[in-house]
Amino acid sequence: MSTPSDNMPPGGTWPDLAGRIEGQVHKLPIRVYYEDTDFSGIVYHANYLRFAERGRSDFLRLAGVHHTSLFEGEDPVAFAIRRMEMDFLKPARIDDRLEVHTRYVRASGARIDARQVIWQLAGTGAPQALWQADVFAAVLDTRGRPRRLPVYVRDALAPFVSVPGAGEGA
Amino acid sequence: MSTPSDNMPPGGTWPDLAGRIEGQVHKLPIRVYYEDTDFSGIVYHANYLRFAERGRSDFLRLAGVHHTSLFEGEDPVAFAIRRMEMDFLKPARIDDRLEVHTRYVRASGARIDARQVIWQLAGTGAPQALWQADVFAAVLDTRGRPRRLPVYVRDALAPFVSVPGAGEGA
Amino acid sequence: MSTPSDNMPPGGTWPDLAGRIEGQVHKLPIRVYYEDTDFSGIVYHANYLRFAERGRSDFLRLAGVHHTSLFEGEDPVAFAIRRMEMDFLKPARIDDRLEVHTRYVRASGARIDARQVIWQLAGTGAPQALWQADVFAAVLDTRGRPRRLPVYVRDALAPFVSVPGAGEGA
Amino acid sequence: MSTPSDNMPPGGTWPDLAGRIEGQVHKLPIRVYYEDTDFSGIVYHANYLRFAERGRSDFLRLAGVHHTSLFEGEDPVAFAIRRMEMDFLKPARIDDRLEVHTRYVRASGARIDARQVIWQLAGTGAPQALWQADVFAAVLDTRGRPRRLPVYVRDALAPFVSVPGAGEGA
Repeated sequence: MSTPSDNMPPGGTWPDLAGRIEGQVHKLPIRVYYEDTDFSGIVYHANYLRFAERGRSDFLRLAGVHHTSLFEGEDPVAFAIRRMEMDFLKPARIDDRLEVHTRYVRASGARIDARQVIWQLAGTGAPQALWQADVFAAVLDTRGRPRRLPVYVRDALAPFVSVPGAGEGA
Repeated sequence: MSTPSDNMPPGGTWPDLAGRIEGQVHKLPIRVYYEDTDFSGIVYHANYLRFAERGRSDFLRLAGVHHTSLFEGEDPVAFAIRRMEMDFLKPARIDDRLEVHTRYVRASGARIDARQVIWQLAGTGAPQALWQADVFAAVLDTRGRPRRLPVYVRDALAPFVSVPGAGEGA
Repeated sequence: MSTPSDNMPPGGTWPDLAGRIEGQVHKLPIRVYYEDTDFSGIVYHANYLRFAERGRSDFLRLAGVHHTSLFEGEDPVAFAIRRMEMDFLKPARIDDRLEVHTRYVRASGARIDARQVIWQLAGTGAPQALWQADVFAAVLDTRGRPRRLPVYVRDALAPFVSVPGAGEGA
Repeated sequence: MSTPSDNMPPGGTWPDLAGRIEGQVHKLPIRVYYEDTDFSGIVYHANYLRFAERGRSDFLRLAGVHHTSLFEGEDPVAFAIRRMEMDFLKPARIDDRLEVHTRYVRASGARIDARQVIWQLAGTGAPQALWQADVFAAVLDTRGRPRRLPVYVRDALAPFVSVPGAGEGA
């Protein structure tokens, strides 16, 4: 029986599985599958939030912050989304190739905020922005009370935190 | 083999399947199932948008506006969400009974806007608001261009459109 | 602000939220929403499994077996699906009213097996079966090892366990 | 504003987005995200079907068969899943790296059947099979009637169709 190990170099195989950090922006490729669309022919609106969460998770992963260590470490902490503001600019469709761009605009105190844009990669021509959002999250302890971001998380993200306005968008 | 017809009065069986309109507010009960939760033990954040869409759809249904007639009629029209602003106030958990409250605050011109609150029904004690959102939708023709709301839709919703502020939340 | 308590008799409001047990069959009504469909115009195939799980959960709920007591009690136990065999007979579409029928055909030893059928309730005419499945689940302890069904669960389900073949289908 | 085009060679950027065909097996990497898990801490059972469908779609894509050309061509055709038999062997968890392996075991007449296995890629040690399925699909015309597979699809898949038993599993 064929197994995954057949063609795998030790230590890795799918180099882009978690996307890439370029400058202060994390970029994650997403393919639109059947599961993402609805009968009107376009991507169901709530699914952009799934795509965006994948981007935030993989940005943390590449920055060295893992959900399991956050949750199960000596000093357990969770992120809870408090507010989202989002614009739906253009619809995505089946088979589209998308790219989720994530910037962390704040990672300090008891807050971690992101600005995200989902782009459609056209076969030719310029990419188009489909969806953009501001995401505001709180840092919580295991009892759900606000607490400060652990120092190792703050330090891991510090090189990537950009000030909005100084730059512009995700 | 048992079939659904065994115990069904002609014309209907599950009277509350589409919720109820009370005054200008539509109320839809929702149960939290496995599918709605994530490994952190609470409802996955994007799923509140699924619950909210069920509420908006069933409000339209009870007001006499059907997706199929909207889409497939002589004068086809679609609603496209343009913007959402939402607050995540408290988490829902497995087995929770929720209630989605929807008010339409505008249904005129080329826009149809709603304010929604998702409540947790406690076994005892007062219900608690878990999630609230302002939802802004555009009316589109089949080519995706803005157009006016069909008169029959505007008239069907007119009795239920409430002015925010004059009232207060969903 | 309107709250759910406004119109609620103490102790409950939505009598059919968990469906009904009729004889040995649990029946749960389901509405097909946008979220359930895909761009081909019909319900995405994996979503029948979501509907079916809602039926199994609500059957247990009405029989007095709660996930929280199963998971968090003194003698914690979980159900893990081991195998499913399913036939997709006809597609469901947006706005369809469905009914999930569940029979438990075994609830003893370390196993709990169900037979399920999802029906489409037509406006007029006979209901049609859209999907049917045999679901085989194992009873596990907190370390994931097989164990016997707790006596209180077995007793709670005993009145509803039907022998397949002796009856016929869900 | 950073855009996807900044760092993109013409014609492509994410070479593994659709996985790879190795011999007669298509391999697609999948990351387990929050959205895929449920409150019991593991991947929700219906989500393996989503992962598997991504694998089948990307196999077709790499073989040169596109949903849009299938659906919108002169000779439109759709695939409808008729039956699935699946075993849930071990659970996947948040952050796991999975690999969906797909073999087409029949693509002729009015049928297209696949065998699929989802593997968990361990950091070290051998991969483990988590889920396996036999998937039986029918070829339909636009009215939902069975019809023969278009010749160009049959020819595109012919090099990859393996006989089960002659080989062994996905």
